[in-house]
Amino acid sequence: MSVFGAIEAGGTKFVCGVGSSPDNMVTTRFPTASPEENIEQIVSFFRHAAGDRVTAVGIGCFGPLDLETGYITSTPKLPWQNYPIRQTISEALKVPVELDTDVNAAALGECRWGATQGLSDSLYLTVGTGIGGGAIVNGTPVHGMMHPEMGHIRVPHDLAADPYPGFCIYHDDCLEGLACGPAIEERWKTAAEQLPPEHEAWSLEAHYLALALCNWICTLSPKRIVLGGGVMKQLHLFPLIRKKVAQLLKGYIRTTELTSGLDEFIVPPGLEMPGLAGALALAQLRCSRTGEKRA
Amino acid sequence: MSVFGAIEAGGTKFVCGVGSSPDNMVTTRFPTASPEENIEQIVSFFRHAAGDRVTAVGIGCFGPLDLETGYITSTPKLPWQNYPIRQTISEALKVPVELDTDVNAAALGECRWGATQGLSDSLYLTVGTGIGGGAIVNGTPVHGMMHPEMGHIRVPHDLAADPYPGFCIYHDDCLEGLACGPAIEERWKTAAEQLPPEHEAWSLEAHYLALALCNWICTLSPKRIVLGGGVMKQLHLFPLIRKKVAQLLKGYIRTTELTSGLDEFIVPPGLEMPGLAGALALAQLRCSRTGEKRA
Repeated sequence: MSVFGAIEAGGTKFVCGVGSSPDNMVTTRFPTASPEENIEQIVSFFRHAAGDRVTAVGIGCFGPLDLETGYITSTPKLPWQNYPIRQTISEALKVPVELDTDVNAAALGECRWGATQGLSDSLYLTVGTGIGGGAIVNGTPVHGMMHPEMGHIRVPHDLAADPYPGFCIYHDDCLEGLACGPAIEERWKTAAEQLPPEHEAWSLEAHYLALALCNWICTLSPKRIVLGGGVMKQLHLFPLIRKKVAQLLKGYIRTTELTSGLDEFIVPPGLEMPGLAGALALAQLRCSRTGEKRA
Repeated sequence: MSVFGAIEAGGTKFVCGVGSSPDNMVTTRFPTASPEENIEQIVSFFRHAAGDRVTAVGIGCFGPLDLETGYITSTPKLPWQNYPIRQTISEALKVPVELDTDVNAAALGECRWGATQGLSDSLYLTVGTGIGGGAIVNGTPVHGMMHPEMGHIRVPHDLAADPYPGFCIYHDDCLEGLACGPAIEERWKTAAEQLPPEHEAWSLEAHYLALALCNWICTLSPKRIVLGGGVMKQLHLFPLIRKKVAQLLKGYIRTTELTSGLDEFIVPPGLEMPGLAGALALAQLRCSRTGEKRA
């Protein structure tokens, strides 16, 4: 049986895994540092955990990425700016490497083994230090011109009700600027995880996320939406968001998912580590594509 | 050579065509009336224009549609509510019929023969009596749970600058409610086409459309956006929209398309009748799929 490598390259930590499914992966994690240091840790982990047995490696990576060249481009993490991550890891491990965004990987992982299994069209959103989304359309992640940057959509912001100007250094009050973890903390002067469930912060958070979800429902028409990331560990947000989505759509889109199935339409991740599972799925995809070419 | 049938079923008129490409189509048009009357006109046109030679028919239809069953569902055009348009036309003409939304058809037509030819990912937006969008992702129209209803996304609405409450009977000030032709007319008490190019109406119109385009750029990452429909016949809107899109994105997404190619990124349709061309493309798709099944 083939063994695959998975790398979830995040802004604060790297998670690596070896296995053939999310259930049987051997994993490790270390803080995001310089590329040299992290690449050495990656090589060392794969050597010890898998010897030379890894068939291909998938990477779900923080962005922005140039998926054609395999570079990390204009990230604020300076040592990683303009860094050829795909080529470097491929040469270091001597295996084919498939690269995608962290959120596309997570969407793919959930689609393969998790909450959106078997669905042709779905959306994975992470709400944490930042906000990002990965969409699966007709079974395949959306890439397009570059890759989606869903966190940066604009949503209505009533300054009278919420005078907070927003956290995004580019757009101030885009969705990420209004609803990411650090925005919650700056607005309420308390870390998000320390705000009690009855705090008005959560109703406002649900309001912004619901506005964004409605825009994506109208644009992507997903069959299910998975909400992950640190902020979504506050599970009391789910019923608030579902209720507000229904209020905002006002019955305009009449599908079973929206009229009677909202509890199954907007859900938490089905996997413990969607991003790492997705990186594994990327490795397997890469392998099946190489197989096709050989055939 | 195979000859195909194309039907653009619009809210105010039907356009029908017979041919093998948009260049050689014989066409006719008649006002949208009752299904019985229109179906008779359709059958009569195809009999006279093509005899029994039509291989398949494509329909780009006003919605909402149930693409699985081939029904028009909850349209405000009462005689067409819960109407099995695909089956009725297929039985009347005795040919296979492919049905999609009018805007998906237009997106497909532009992708096959028009302004987005050869691009894997694109967006077609129509701005007229209503606002609708069709997206092509990885070469295929987005369908998902139902089909997109892009006109109904929410965008920021500064009530101090624009106190107009919006035209949408469902959502008041969604994009369609703020920026469709009837909203322009109601806000300024003048038909859109009679407002001079220097009127402030156009700067506001460009502002709302640019906000929506930025949301779709962040979500779908299209390689090109085509803006069609009656309102976009005001070609002076294009430079205004391009400028506002650049201002809103603030250099966050660094692709050639956005940094130096905006004139080729946001463009008018390349075809005279994108919807009818798209219906023809649907008929051809249907035929190639039937061929696959037989093979």
